[in-house]
Amino acid sequence: MTVKRIQAGPRMSQAVVHGNVVYLAGQVCPAEAGATTVAGQAKVILGQIDKLLAEAGTSKQNLLSATIWLTDMGTFKEMNEVWDKWVVQGSTPARATVEARLAGPQYLIEIAAIAAIG
Amino acid sequence: MTVKRIQAGPRMSQAVVHGNVVYLAGQVCPAEAGATTVAGQAKVILGQIDKLLAEAGTSKQNLLSATIWLTDMGTFKEMNEVWDKWVVQGSTPARATVEARLAGPQYLIEIAAIAAIG
Amino acid sequence: MTVKRIQAGPRMSQAVVHGNVVYLAGQVCPAEAGATTVAGQAKVILGQIDKLLAEAGTSKQNLLSATIWLTDMGTFKEMNEVWDKWVVQGSTPARATVEARLAGPQYLIEIAAIAAIG
Repeated sequence: MTVKRIQAGPRMSQAVVHGNVVYLAGQVCPAEAGATTVAGQAKVILGQIDKLLAEAGTSKQNLLSATIWLTDMGTFKEMNEVWDKWVVQGSTPARATVEARLAGPQYLIEIAAIAAIG
Repeated sequence: MTVKRIQAGPRMSQAVVHGNVVYLAGQVCPAEAGATTVAGQAKVILGQIDKLLAEAGTSKQNLLSATIWLTDMGTFKEMNEVWDKWVVQGSTPARATVEARLAGPQYLIEIAAIAAIG
Repeated sequence: MTVKRIQAGPRMSQAVVHGNVVYLAGQVCPAEAGATTVAGQAKVILGQIDKLLAEAGTSKQNLLSATIWLTDMGTFKEMNEVWDKWVVQGSTPARATVEARLAGPQYLIEIAAIAAIG
């Protein structure tokens, strides 16, 4: 069973495919996206996840699990409003959401995920 | 390889089965359980995990990994006393425990897990 | 598909093999290693990961994903300097790094990982 890496950088790959499972790196909203709210950053991140899943030959319908880190749990409701519209009803992943400081103060939310392929 | 979702809600599923692996959502102790200590919440959560694993056709004997979040690392010992009695000797999972604020102040502990099936 | 546990203790196993995937417990630097910096602890931890992966019949070249917890995100750069030298170029895993207090104040960094075997 081969391993295929997507956007393999010197520090990490943005996604790694192994058999019929793909592991996504924790996604944050790049500064150039100009999103300074949790809702705005969540939308950008979920778009990135859509693209990575497509590169891996799958989609959000096949999400298995997601981990969400918020720098301020007070934004939980705001994040969920974006999340709830994005997930596919009947195909929602297992999920855990906790509070954590992220790699830079500009990042308000980070999401990692695991999805099935095919 | 099909994906089967257990307690699939509009936001997340409580467990997602893919092939012979099941991914559990982060479990917290519901308010109606009335548990206000880490030990009490841990017991409720581990009971929920037992039930979800059973629904997936497996048991704690097949746990592969677990992630535990405590809102106060000062409760590490108290959590472990419950955990150590619950796990199956000789079949303990890989585990990581870190401190994090959770979705609400009433939650003192959250546990996510991955298990093999069959 | 059998489950094989490596260094199975009463509380957790240091690694659990399921099929062609191995799940590693969150690794911290033991006090006896005498490392009191993030760089020093990271080196010890990555060495432990190398050994666990070898016991599982694989290596860092087959890493699928890694989760890194730092007690102080101010050490992100220091951690990355060690990490970047350790990972295999072209074979970097998906990765997420967040800040969290760990099981004891002596621990400055913890790393969990999932790898493919063979």
